[in-house]
Amino acid sequence: MDISNVLIPTGGIVALLFATFLFFKVRRQSPGNEKMQELSNAIREGAMAFLKSEYKVLIVFVVIVTGLLFAASFFEGSNMHWGTALAFVIGAILSAVAGNIGMRVATMSNARTAEGTKKSLSKGLIIAFSSGGVMGMCVVGLGVLGVFSSFVFFNSFIDLDLFTTTNILFGFGFGASSIALFARVGGGIYTKSADVGADLVGKVEAGIPEDDPRNPAVIADQVGDNVGDVAGMGADLFESYVDSIIATMALAAILGMFFISGNFDITQKIIPWFDSNYVFVQSELVRYIMLPLIVAGMGILSAIIGILVVILGGGKNIYGALRNSLFIATILTSILGGAATWYLLGRLEPVYAMVAGLVGGIIIGLSTEYFTSEKRKPAQSIAEASRTGPATVIIQGLQVGMISTIIPIIAVAAAMIFAYEVSGFYGIALSAVGMLSILGVSLATDCYGPVADNAQGIAEMAGMGTEVRERTEQLDAVGNTTAAMGKGFAIGSAAITSLALIFTFIMMAKSLGANINLSLEDPYLVSGLFIGAMLPFVFAALTMGAVGKAAYAMVEEVRYQFKKFKLLENDKNKPDYKRCVKISTNMALKKMILPSLMAVISPIVVGIVLKPTGLGGLLMGSITTGFLLAVFLANSGGAWDNAKKYVESGHLGGKGSDAHKATIIGDTVGDPCKDTSGPSLNILIKLMSIVSLVFLPLIIALT
Amino acid sequence: MDISNVLIPTGGIVALLFATFLFFKVRRQSPGNEKMQELSNAIREGAMAFLKSEYKVLIVFVVIVTGLLFAASFFEGSNMHWGTALAFVIGAILSAVAGNIGMRVATMSNARTAEGTKKSLSKGLIIAFSSGGVMGMCVVGLGVLGVFSSFVFFNSFIDLDLFTTTNILFGFGFGASSIALFARVGGGIYTKSADVGADLVGKVEAGIPEDDPRNPAVIADQVGDNVGDVAGMGADLFESYVDSIIATMALAAILGMFFISGNFDITQKIIPWFDSNYVFVQSELVRYIMLPLIVAGMGILSAIIGILVVILGGGKNIYGALRNSLFIATILTSILGGAATWYLLGRLEPVYAMVAGLVGGIIIGLSTEYFTSEKRKPAQSIAEASRTGPATVIIQGLQVGMISTIIPIIAVAAAMIFAYEVSGFYGIALSAVGMLSILGVSLATDCYGPVADNAQGIAEMAGMGTEVRERTEQLDAVGNTTAAMGKGFAIGSAAITSLALIFTFIMMAKSLGANINLSLEDPYLVSGLFIGAMLPFVFAALTMGAVGKAAYAMVEEVRYQFKKFKLLENDKNKPDYKRCVKISTNMALKKMILPSLMAVISPIVVGIVLKPTGLGGLLMGSITTGFLLAVFLANSGGAWDNAKKYVESGHLGGKGSDAHKATIIGDTVGDPCKDTSGPSLNILIKLMSIVSLVFLPLIIALT
Repeated sequence: MDISNVLIPTGGIVALLFATFLFFKVRRQSPGNEKMQELSNAIREGAMAFLKSEYKVLIVFVVIVTGLLFAASFFEGSNMHWGTALAFVIGAILSAVAGNIGMRVATMSNARTAEGTKKSLSKGLIIAFSSGGVMGMCVVGLGVLGVFSSFVFFNSFIDLDLFTTTNILFGFGFGASSIALFARVGGGIYTKSADVGADLVGKVEAGIPEDDPRNPAVIADQVGDNVGDVAGMGADLFESYVDSIIATMALAAILGMFFISGNFDITQKIIPWFDSNYVFVQSELVRYIMLPLIVAGMGILSAIIGILVVILGGGKNIYGALRNSLFIATILTSILGGAATWYLLGRLEPVYAMVAGLVGGIIIGLSTEYFTSEKRKPAQSIAEASRTGPATVIIQGLQVGMISTIIPIIAVAAAMIFAYEVSGFYGIALSAVGMLSILGVSLATDCYGPVADNAQGIAEMAGMGTEVRERTEQLDAVGNTTAAMGKGFAIGSAAITSLALIFTFIMMAKSLGANINLSLEDPYLVSGLFIGAMLPFVFAALTMGAVGKAAYAMVEEVRYQFKKFKLLENDKNKPDYKRCVKISTNMALKKMILPSLMAVISPIVVGIVLKPTGLGGLLMGSITTGFLLAVFLANSGGAWDNAKKYVESGHLGGKGSDAHKATIIGDTVGDPCKDTSGPSLNILIKLMSIVSLVFLPLIIALT
Repeated sequence: MDISNVLIPTGGIVALLFATFLFFKVRRQSPGNEKMQELSNAIREGAMAFLKSEYKVLIVFVVIVTGLLFAASFFEGSNMHWGTALAFVIGAILSAVAGNIGMRVATMSNARTAEGTKKSLSKGLIIAFSSGGVMGMCVVGLGVLGVFSSFVFFNSFIDLDLFTTTNILFGFGFGASSIALFARVGGGIYTKSADVGADLVGKVEAGIPEDDPRNPAVIADQVGDNVGDVAGMGADLFESYVDSIIATMALAAILGMFFISGNFDITQKIIPWFDSNYVFVQSELVRYIMLPLIVAGMGILSAIIGILVVILGGGKNIYGALRNSLFIATILTSILGGAATWYLLGRLEPVYAMVAGLVGGIIIGLSTEYFTSEKRKPAQSIAEASRTGPATVIIQGLQVGMISTIIPIIAVAAAMIFAYEVSGFYGIALSAVGMLSILGVSLATDCYGPVADNAQGIAEMAGMGTEVRERTEQLDAVGNTTAAMGKGFAIGSAAITSLALIFTFIMMAKSLGANINLSLEDPYLVSGLFIGAMLPFVFAALTMGAVGKAAYAMVEEVRYQFKKFKLLENDKNKPDYKRCVKISTNMALKKMILPSLMAVISPIVVGIVLKPTGLGGLLMGSITTGFLLAVFLANSGGAWDNAKKYVESGHLGGKGSDAHKATIIGDTVGDPCKDTSGPSLNILIKLMSIVSLVFLPLIIALT
């Protein structure tokens, strides 16, 4: 029995055990007084109501796609295996389970975090972060166990060859992608329609503060934080995580095919040292296939230690504690992953590739922090621009977002070239695995944000007194920064994962004998590139438009309730929160259908019309502008948000000044950019690649 | 003597003669009363002052680049000819001459147009349009004569072979590009800094109307229309025009090289019927080289007829007259160009390619009109969004701009594939020539806009009475629509011209024996693609930032003058217009240096670092996002502008309402998008391609 067969499931199980430990640790905490519990329950109910409605749509989608995949596997010459359909279902279920657990814990922790801050700031931090840790550990644990057991099932039980087995795993990735699509796009529309709707009537029209319990949309707003930033982010990164692992495994399997057929030109591109002189045994190939899972397992251990650093360390410097946990996990992963690689393969080159990805991810995160933090020049320059009104605030924000694309693009390009030079395409895929290996802890940091945000809202609504409010505000402020970094990380990892998938697509097309010419001198490829580059613009416009329409429905409802229940006139009258929750839910699910279908269908249509060559162009085009637009939209939005915070903290006239009003406009513009359209693009680029990989055999058969 | 040696120079000379005729026709008109002449003179002086200052910078640039090109031609093994340096100078001079004449006529015509509208609307139209015609005819005349005589000089007098001769012509294109860079980027910064600066203090702070003579920046604003929309647009399209012709000529010459060496794989890609069975004589090759110039010559005749339709037709439906002239010229060019091609080559396939370009250009123009016109849903949806404030106006505008990329992208992709299928790469280049062949009349339509705008300003400032003001307003409104269409046309032609240049680049690299692998499976190419795709974002951010800084300087100056001269308190006090003109000029020239250098240097640096392969990726990446961003920015800006006009025409509360204020914010955001950053991207993508072509031999020698 190979060591990987022990190490990998152990890593996955340890992750789930640690998640259980954190879960009970959080549940032990006091949920606060009755008022707080009431609010927390309302949020949980709203969140679960959204999930329930979402599942209804999802089940239809999953059943249809499973049926299609299953049918396609019987289509003469399609080369698709029925296992793809099964893997698709497993991937979808595991992603949904991880998201569901994450949401339950997050909505359980908000009141507990607020209550915890009564004792101390660090107590609040630990509760919020632990609940994020549950999500993080569930994602990595279920991801590793899911991919590993699917592989073992098809390879050992059904006795398929390695190539077919890894091919089937794309179905797993497609399942994860589908959930991510619904969670990110639907969640993104939900969260911003509630937020914008609540603000436009509450803050702007009625002049009541944010999180005022008289505002009927306030619970929907809090639900939105969980729906968008917990479930959406979790599903997004679950997808990246498993996709990067699967791409690496598939590249190794493709290498095996070409090596046996003696095509050393290609094997050397996949892994440079597999040249004609290489002496090669089948068991070695399995080790190359298993390596990404081993690295992921080492990442889990490192992430657990990273999480413990925060929990045991406590301390007043919250941001410092969170950042240190990331750094420690990064260093540990490099060491443990490096040792495992050396032990398994007797080589260090793949480690360099992996570390390149890790470093790239950190650089992107830091760049995001720089461009969006209120303590740095970019966001402050936006605040300064408020001197000449809202128009210049917008222009300055657009500019900051555009300039902020430089570092992420160069970081990904450099990581890609470096990884390729040391370990070929396999190295590029492995750099994505490396970047994502610390996901357990980085996702904990991400999910900490919305919990802290909710805790802040509950403290506000339950009237918990100045000291607690100040503390929850501190937690929330750090949460905004980590959320911004998390967004950058999510985008960067989506980009490098998509690159890995595209290179896998190219190799896969060659291994399936497709007549594919990927030269830029082919006008079909260039057409595909143009159309692919256009899709993110259209996708962003559709999701932005969806927020607008959903927010408008919310505005109407809030205005109506204000009038009907005389909420502003009489403090005793209570709004009907549930109606607002329902509106957000229904609008989000309705409005996500068009962009979602576009993402799934366009690669298949382009693949058939412009052939696999045009499809290659489409994928490369979509990842290029998808990446750029995602960074642009996320960073513009983040910088607008923090420019407003900068003014609110007393600069340029502070709250209520003209500068403040101008920056509020900027923030409102930025909201759908940074929380809906930008993050949804991560899904678009990965999903189109994975759809192409899944349907490639069919497309080849049809063209 | 071949027929083309007669036809081509005749076409060029006829164009210049017709320009002269139009010039005297305009000059004969009454320049109006003293007040009007005074204003017109102030605008002319301002415009000439800008040109003079610009020339100072330009001369330095041209001398340095000429020196470098000349020096490079002596660099051992660089394969560069000294003729490139000479062609560069000629191209630069001719572009500058065309721009200079255009500016002189435009600034001569504004008062005359205003005076003409006293008699009738159509009189005003004819004067404004004729002055645009001078610019249009100068551009095409000088373009055709310049390229033709350079070709004849190097081919017949210096006795160089066809390949070397067409290679040298890239220098001509580079010269034209350099002027375009300065005119478009500098002009774009100038025009918007003056406009935004004038509006922010005048309209917003002091509450005085637009074009109020008490506003010190009002003349700078009028000058800006000429600098940006006449000189900038003219130089931009001069560049596209000559670049598309040169690319087609070069492809034919490259074809000859490969045909002789028997590489029929490549010759068939360039022109499909040049297979191994083709019987080929050298004189035939010359005809293929001359074809684009012949088509251009036919286009000139068609454009003259198109212009005469407007001038002789007159009529009340101004927009209809302008559009008809474009349609008539399009149909005539197709017929005349088709006949010439049939006569010259005995084939019709190249005609199909040419017509594909023409049709593509018209579709893009109509799409732009749809997305920006105040009579259509997109702009109206932005106006509607003002119900919920400026933030939703911005979001809606971003969305409209993003969605508006669909048609132009598909039009260019479809034209490219169609042209390639019928006539190979040569066909793609010829489709660009086709699209631009009617430039004489389409540029007349473009330049009509700023003249009408100026006339409107002069009518306002000189207090010419309600009737005249209403008429000039009508002229101006149509001018806005044609300007938007012109922008779409400029972007579309830049995109297809750049594509032609990139395919020429690829063929040229192969013919020079470069080790170039343009497959998407090369990570260096993908890195180049990523970086290239990023550059338009950075370029747009830099130009947008330049407008912000320049506008801020203008705001300070206007505030200072209001205070110092007590302009608002006492009607007799006069502002110092010249100081404002000077500020715009200096800021524009200072702020265009960084983006300009970036455009020129990055292809050379990337070519050396990432090799010609990475450079290929860079070019393709930059054209992809450059095209998308340009459409997005131009159409968002145009739609915001017209959403404001829609409100001003009485909808949603009309002037002074909250809706109006919200749409003014949208318009201010859109100004630098549509008039600076968007159009500058046209230059970026063409310039980077032409720089790559010029320096390719050197880059190959260095790598």
